[in-house]
Amino acid sequence: MAATSTVRAAARRTPAHGLRRYLPFLNWLAQYRRADLPSDLVAGIVTAIMLIPQSMAYAQLAGLPPQVGLYASVVPLAIYALLGTSGQLSVGPVAITSLLVFTAVSPLAAAGSPRYLELALLLALMVGALKLVLGVARLGVVLNFISHPVLAAFTSASALIIAVGQLKYLLGVSLGGETIFETLALAFTRLPQANAATLTIGLATVGLLLFFRHGLRPLLRKAGLPALAVTLIVSGAPLIAVIGGILVVWLARLDLSAGVAIVGAIPAGIALPQLPAARFADMEALAPGALAIVLVSVVESIAVARSLASKRRQVIDPDQELIALGAANVTAGFFGGYPVTGGFSRSVVNAQAGAITGLASLITAAAIALILLFFTPLFTFLPQAVLAATVLVAVFSLVDLREPLQIMRTNRGDAATWLITFVAVLVLGIENGIFVGVGVSLLLYLWRTSRPHIAVVGHLEGETYRNILRHKVQTWPEVVAVRIDESLYFANTRYLEDALLRIVAERPELRHVVLIGSAINFIDSSALHTLEHLHHELRDSGVELHLSEIKGPVMDRLSKSDFLRDLGQSRVHRSTHDAMRALGYV
Amino acid sequence: MAATSTVRAAARRTPAHGLRRYLPFLNWLAQYRRADLPSDLVAGIVTAIMLIPQSMAYAQLAGLPPQVGLYASVVPLAIYALLGTSGQLSVGPVAITSLLVFTAVSPLAAAGSPRYLELALLLALMVGALKLVLGVARLGVVLNFISHPVLAAFTSASALIIAVGQLKYLLGVSLGGETIFETLALAFTRLPQANAATLTIGLATVGLLLFFRHGLRPLLRKAGLPALAVTLIVSGAPLIAVIGGILVVWLARLDLSAGVAIVGAIPAGIALPQLPAARFADMEALAPGALAIVLVSVVESIAVARSLASKRRQVIDPDQELIALGAANVTAGFFGGYPVTGGFSRSVVNAQAGAITGLASLITAAAIALILLFFTPLFTFLPQAVLAATVLVAVFSLVDLREPLQIMRTNRGDAATWLITFVAVLVLGIENGIFVGVGVSLLLYLWRTSRPHIAVVGHLEGETYRNILRHKVQTWPEVVAVRIDESLYFANTRYLEDALLRIVAERPELRHVVLIGSAINFIDSSALHTLEHLHHELRDSGVELHLSEIKGPVMDRLSKSDFLRDLGQSRVHRSTHDAMRALGYV
Repeated sequence: MAATSTVRAAARRTPAHGLRRYLPFLNWLAQYRRADLPSDLVAGIVTAIMLIPQSMAYAQLAGLPPQVGLYASVVPLAIYALLGTSGQLSVGPVAITSLLVFTAVSPLAAAGSPRYLELALLLALMVGALKLVLGVARLGVVLNFISHPVLAAFTSASALIIAVGQLKYLLGVSLGGETIFETLALAFTRLPQANAATLTIGLATVGLLLFFRHGLRPLLRKAGLPALAVTLIVSGAPLIAVIGGILVVWLARLDLSAGVAIVGAIPAGIALPQLPAARFADMEALAPGALAIVLVSVVESIAVARSLASKRRQVIDPDQELIALGAANVTAGFFGGYPVTGGFSRSVVNAQAGAITGLASLITAAAIALILLFFTPLFTFLPQAVLAATVLVAVFSLVDLREPLQIMRTNRGDAATWLITFVAVLVLGIENGIFVGVGVSLLLYLWRTSRPHIAVVGHLEGETYRNILRHKVQTWPEVVAVRIDESLYFANTRYLEDALLRIVAERPELRHVVLIGSAINFIDSSALHTLEHLHHELRDSGVELHLSEIKGPVMDRLSKSDFLRDLGQSRVHRSTHDAMRALGYV
Repeated sequence: MAATSTVRAAARRTPAHGLRRYLPFLNWLAQYRRADLPSDLVAGIVTAIMLIPQSMAYAQLAGLPPQVGLYASVVPLAIYALLGTSGQLSVGPVAITSLLVFTAVSPLAAAGSPRYLELALLLALMVGALKLVLGVARLGVVLNFISHPVLAAFTSASALIIAVGQLKYLLGVSLGGETIFETLALAFTRLPQANAATLTIGLATVGLLLFFRHGLRPLLRKAGLPALAVTLIVSGAPLIAVIGGILVVWLARLDLSAGVAIVGAIPAGIALPQLPAARFADMEALAPGALAIVLVSVVESIAVARSLASKRRQVIDPDQELIALGAANVTAGFFGGYPVTGGFSRSVVNAQAGAITGLASLITAAAIALILLFFTPLFTFLPQAVLAATVLVAVFSLVDLREPLQIMRTNRGDAATWLITFVAVLVLGIENGIFVGVGVSLLLYLWRTSRPHIAVVGHLEGETYRNILRHKVQTWPEVVAVRIDESLYFANTRYLEDALLRIVAERPELRHVVLIGSAINFIDSSALHTLEHLHHELRDSGVELHLSEIKGPVMDRLSKSDFLRDLGQSRVHRSTHDAMRALGYV
C-alpha cells in the first residue's frame, strides 16, 4: 500500500507544467533512481529479443525488406521513449499497421521496388504529421469515434486477412487472389505444389512457438521459476526459431538444394536521415491509408498505454501520446522506417519484464542499433517461412469470436455493427472496412438519439410525477405533462414535434402542454427553432406551451433566444408540480 | 372553438387504418362536402395561375425546355393530391431542386440536348424511388440529420447562386464562370455588351413583380379588399408579366429586330408515358445529385406541409409524405417531367386561397393540362428575360442573413455550422455544399456529446447531493461521487475513463468511487467494456467502484453484462444517499 501511495503521489505531481508537459522524459530522467536501472535494462533487452524477429516479419508483411522493420525500431522507438507519457509502451512495427501499409502502397508501386519504399516512408511522414496536428490541437478526442465493436471486428477480420496472406510464405508458392476467400481457395488447390522443405520449416516454427506459449509457459510456472525468467524464455521463442531456421538452412544450404526462400543479404548500418520525395498526387492517393492507420493505431496504442499505466495509478495524456507517436512516425519517415505504433503483446512483455521508465525502450533501441551495425550478415539465410510463422502465431491471438457473442447479449445494435464491420473488412478490404465500420456506428448512434423516449406523466403523490403507462397516476383532460429523455438537437426535433402534435391531436379538450426538461442536457438552434415553431402551432390551435425542470445550461441558451421572449417567462416553471399549481390543478 | 373541435375530432379519426393509410384521398373523397367545392376550385385556379410561369421559369433554370416544367406540374401534382396527407401542399418544380438538377446533369450532357432531358427524367425516377424506399421502410427519420443551420445556410447560398445564374438571361449575353464569383465578375465586365431591349424587359418585370409584392399588396389591403382578392391579384403578377412580355415582343417583333431571346415553339399536348433509358453508369453518376435532392426537398416539403396542417390541428404523416412525393417523382420521370417537390410560397398561396383538400391540386393539374393541350402556341414569344426575372424575385426572399446572427446569439457551434455550409455551397458548389454541411453538423454534435459534463458531488442536506464547485457540501477523502450528464457511448467512454482516472490519481486516500447515472439515458457495448476495464483498473489500485441512480433501460443492459456479474449486485445502489449509507459515511 505504501508503494502504491508513492506512485500516486508521483502521479499527482505530474499534471505537467510548461516544458515538462511536452518533454515528459524531463520528469523521469531528472528523478531517475539508480535502483531502477537493472529492471529497465532487463526489460529493454527482453523486448529487443522479441522485437528483432517481429520487426523483420512485419516488414515482410508490409511488402518491405526486413531491414526496414529494424530501422523503424531504432530512432522512432527512442523518440517515443523521450516524448511519450507511458514508461511501458513499446513502439515499433505492428501487424495490422503493416497490413494497412501494404494495402495503401501496393496499388501504387510493385512491392520491393525503390518507389514502393519511397511511398512507405512518405506514408510514415503523413501518419506522423496527422498525429502531431491532432495532438498539438488537442483533438485526440475525435479518435474516440471508433467504437469498441468496430475495433474488435476490425482486429479479428484483419488478423484473418494477415494469416491468410502468410500462407504463400509457408507453402513456398505464389498465391494471387483478390479477396481472402480466393486466396484460401488457391492455397488449397496449390497445396500439392508446395515446397516441402519450406512447409516443414514453417510448420515446425508454428509448432515451436505454440509449444513455448501454451505448453512451456505453464510448465515453467509449475516448476516454480520466477515470473521474470518465464517471460524471458517465452519471449525468446521467436528468436530461438530464427536462429534455428538460419542454422538449418545454412548448414544444409536448403536455399540452393531445396529452393527455400530466404531473406537474403541485408545491408549493414543505420539508415541516414533523408527526406522522402513527396508529390501531391502520391499524398492524395495515400491519404485514406494514412487516416486509417491513424484511427486504428492510436486507439489501440493509447488503450494499451492506459491499461499498463493504470496498474501503477499513473495517468496517460492522450494528446501528448499523439504528439509522441506523431514524432516517432515522422522520424520513421526520415530514417528509412515505416509507420510504427505501440504494440500490445510487446508492451505487455516490456511491462512484465520490469520496465519502469522510457529508459527500457532506449535500451531496446540501442540493442537493435547494434544488430544493424554489426550482425545483419547473420540474417542472410533466415527463411521467410520462419518470419511468416511468427506473424501467423502472433495474429491468431487477435481473432476473438466470443466477443461478438457477448456484445449480442447486451446490445443488438452493437452486434450488428460488429458483423457489418467484420464482413466489410473481409469483403471490401481492410481500409474501406474501417471507414464503413466507423460510419455505421455513428449512424446507429444518431438513429438511437433521433427517436428519444417520450413519457406522458401524471401526478403520483406529493411533488412526484410518473409515466402514465407504468404507474396509476392522476391526469386531467385539459393538461398534459410530457418528459423527453434526451438532449434536443436537430436529429430528434422533428420526431419530438410530430410526437407532441400527435399527443395534442389525440386530446380534444387540451389547453396546456407542460414540457419537462429534466433529462435534456443541451439544446441546439434547430431545437430552439422547433420549440418556437411548436409554440406558434400550439397557440394557433388554442393550446398553451409550458416548460418545467429546465437545467441550467439549457436555460442559459433559452434565455438568449427569441423563443423565450415570445413564450414569456411566466410559462417557465421550476418543477412540474409548480407548473400544475400555477395552472390550478393541484 | 366548435369548428376547431370538429377538425380535432376528424384528426383523431384519421390515424388511418389499412388502405386508408396508404391512399389518404379515400378519407377526404368519401366525406367530401359540396360546400367545400367553391373554395377548392378558387384555390386550384389561383395556384395554376402562379404555377404556369413558375414551372416554365424553373425548367429554364434546370437547363430544360419550358414545357418540361409544365409536364412536371400535371400528373405528379395529381398523384401527390391522391397520396399526400396535406390538403394544402402544392407540388411541382421548385427553384433549389431545379438548380440541383442542373448541377447533377450538366456535367454529363449539354443543356438542351435529348440526352440531357433523358438524364433529367432518369434523375426524377431515382429521386422518386429513393423517397418511396425511405417511406415504405419508414426511414423518413434519417432526413432529420439535416439540421436547421445547415438548411438555412444552404437555402441562402443556393438562392444567391440561382440569382447570379439568371443574370445571363437578364443581360442577354452568355456568361461562363466556374464559380458564382467569376460569373458575377464576368457580368460586370460584359455589362456594356448587354442587349438593351432584353435588359429593359427583364428590369421592368423585376420592377412589376416587386411592386405587386411590396407596393400593391399593402395598398389593396388598406383599400379594404377581401384577403382572397388580394391573394388572387398578387399571385397573378407573374402571369401578368408573362402576358405583357409576350405582347411587347410579338407586337414589336423584338426577337427579330432587337435580338431578344424568346422561349420559341412549345410542342402541344401532354407527354405520353415512357421509360427513360437507364444505364448503370448514368445512375452512378447521378446518385449524389439524387441523394442531395431527396435530402433538401423532403425536409423543406414536410416542414411546409406540417406548418400548414398544424394551423388546422391536422397531423402530417412524414413516411406517407415520402411515399406520396416518391410516387409523384416516379410519375414525373415517366411523363416527361423532372424532379418535383412541395413549394413553400406556392403552398402558402394555395392555403390562403382556401384549399381544403387535395381536390384543389387536382384542379390546378387539370388547368395546366388544358394549357398544354390548347394554349402552348401563345408562349412562343415569351422572352426568357421575363422568366429569369420571375426566378430572381422568387429566390431573393430565400436569402436570409439575419438568421445566422440570431443563431450566433444562442449557439456558436451552430453559427459555425451555418458559416461553413454557406461558404461550402458557394465555393464547392450546391451538391458538395449540402454534404459538407450535414457532415459538419453531425461531427459537431458528436464532439459535444464526446466531452460530457462531469460533476463531483457532495452531500448538501437530507438525501440531496450537489456539485462541489457550486455548493458548500460535505465530502470525504476516501470516497468520491461523480455524476455524468450524458448517455455513455463509444465517443465519450474514453474521455470518461480519463476523467475518472484523473479524479482517482488526484485523491491519494481514495477507497470508493460512486458513479451516479441519473442523466445516463442509455449505454452501449463500448461503454460497458470501458466500465469493466475501469472496474479492473480501480480494483488493481485498491479502489472500489459503485453505481447509483441507474435508470431502468440502462440497468436492463447492465444486468445482462459480464461487467455487473463481475462487479457484484451489492455495488449497485438505488440512490447516492443509499450508497453513502452503505459505505458508512452518512
